[in-house]
Amino acid sequence: MRSKRYLIGVDGGGSGCRVALAAPDGRIVAQATGGPANFTTDPDGAIANALHAIEEVAAAAGLDAEGLEACIAHLGLAGVMDQADERAVADAMPFRNMAVSDDRATMVAGALGDRDGVLLALGTGTIIAAQRRGQVRYLGGWGPVLADQASGGWLGRRALQIAMQTEDGLLPNTGFTATVMGHFEGDPIAVVKFAASAQPKEFAAFAPVVFDCAGAGDEQAKALIEEGVAYLEACLDAVQFDETCVLCLAGGVGPRYAPYLEKRYKARIVSALGTALDGALSLARKLRDSEGG
Amino acid sequence: MRSKRYLIGVDGGGSGCRVALAAPDGRIVAQATGGPANFTTDPDGAIANALHAIEEVAAAAGLDAEGLEACIAHLGLAGVMDQADERAVADAMPFRNMAVSDDRATMVAGALGDRDGVLLALGTGTIIAAQRRGQVRYLGGWGPVLADQASGGWLGRRALQIAMQTEDGLLPNTGFTATVMGHFEGDPIAVVKFAASAQPKEFAAFAPVVFDCAGAGDEQAKALIEEGVAYLEACLDAVQFDETCVLCLAGGVGPRYAPYLEKRYKARIVSALGTALDGALSLARKLRDSEGG
Repeated sequence: MRSKRYLIGVDGGGSGCRVALAAPDGRIVAQATGGPANFTTDPDGAIANALHAIEEVAAAAGLDAEGLEACIAHLGLAGVMDQADERAVADAMPFRNMAVSDDRATMVAGALGDRDGVLLALGTGTIIAAQRRGQVRYLGGWGPVLADQASGGWLGRRALQIAMQTEDGLLPNTGFTATVMGHFEGDPIAVVKFAASAQPKEFAAFAPVVFDCAGAGDEQAKALIEEGVAYLEACLDAVQFDETCVLCLAGGVGPRYAPYLEKRYKARIVSALGTALDGALSLARKLRDSEGG
Repeated sequence: MRSKRYLIGVDGGGSGCRVALAAPDGRIVAQATGGPANFTTDPDGAIANALHAIEEVAAAAGLDAEGLEACIAHLGLAGVMDQADERAVADAMPFRNMAVSDDRATMVAGALGDRDGVLLALGTGTIIAAQRRGQVRYLGGWGPVLADQASGGWLGRRALQIAMQTEDGLLPNTGFTATVMGHFEGDPIAVVKFAASAQPKEFAAFAPVVFDCAGAGDEQAKALIEEGVAYLEACLDAVQFDETCVLCLAGGVGPRYAPYLEKRYKARIVSALGTALDGALSLARKLRDSEGG
């Protein structure tokens, strides 16, 4: 019987990958972690690291090669951009039956489950996904150069931009700018040198400063958060968010936006049901069930 | 007599350097061009390329080593950030008497001469300089990551950001976005891939599209130009621009802002007196004159 098959979920991202193996009844029997698995950054490394962690869970569960082949798997890897990418990953895997997606799909499945609603995952970057009747629509998340508004990386970079405009006498000097400049000993040239090579993650280190200053009443920090909120609410409007939807704020900075959202959005906030790894397992289960097992 | 000394001006930038040698009476007797001379990007190359072009003008003017040593020179090189950089350049030069600056100083001297006023040099990046009674104050120009508002690179990047927000259904679809997306065959993924590695110069290639669409009445393109104008006018306000000041719009996109500026700024627009190379020569002449020659 097909429903007797084991399930494998893979959540792969730039800092590492996580693999879980569940028994036919859904109970997780083995987990493993592995190296980075971002398909855009390093396709071969992503595949090799995911495979290694998959073999580890198979061994821990006592599955032989045939047993592993029979598992039904869903792999969600960051950086999978199109069907060619999906196929390249699938071709390298031992499973007869599997699906491959980017990590946004597994994140949505994990956080929202089957609920209609919107996931605002705001960490270093921005992921916005609206799910309605099982269909998912993505907005933004076009990367730090073109988008990623409201993310930690965006907040940090905007904070430094504001600090530089204050240096130039274009904006009033509130405590916020002084706090930001304090991290560079007040030297604007040090800010310029930092920004020239800083990655989104390094900019995102300033996001907590923005929320802390805003929380303490700083008008400039509050205005910056409102900029992020305006973008997020424009996205919620665009997907026609209503009282049938839930709102899930995830990622390092997502939950910190909660107090700043309009009442009608705030009232619909729910916790994530699970992680992207849970989502990968649930998508593997759906794949099995869709086969009529 | 010191006033009999020859003058040398050097204008060094990322795409090449220009050197001019003027007779004591100010008449240019030799010119040469050389390789890139941006001190931040490549200090050794910048010095070698400038030196090579300097030796070329000396040879063309029939100056021997002693004659070259006696020249009074001003070198304005892009990427010279502090006194240590200035000293490193000076130490490598044959002149007994010289000054070194970044290329902004020579640009201001060339464009404004001795006039009180503001230079808005908007090309790939942004240079804003306000001169009053011989003192120059710089604003912005902190590079593409933190600033360079209103520049060609900034306009192009903002145009692509707006196009992506239109793709997401966050902004109305005017002809502007369609024109921009037409350069990518309408494929947003192609835009993302372009933006991931594009340099400011490549973004700046879209600046004419913005001005052309705005000129044809497109509201979205006009709003983007107004964003740039708001920044430029904030800078003009910050330096207390008044009816004693002239306004010089330079660089590839600078002059295109003219029709969008407030009347009181528009009324004060003048042409640049000369180039950065002219500025370098005039600064060399000032250095000679300050010696009481």
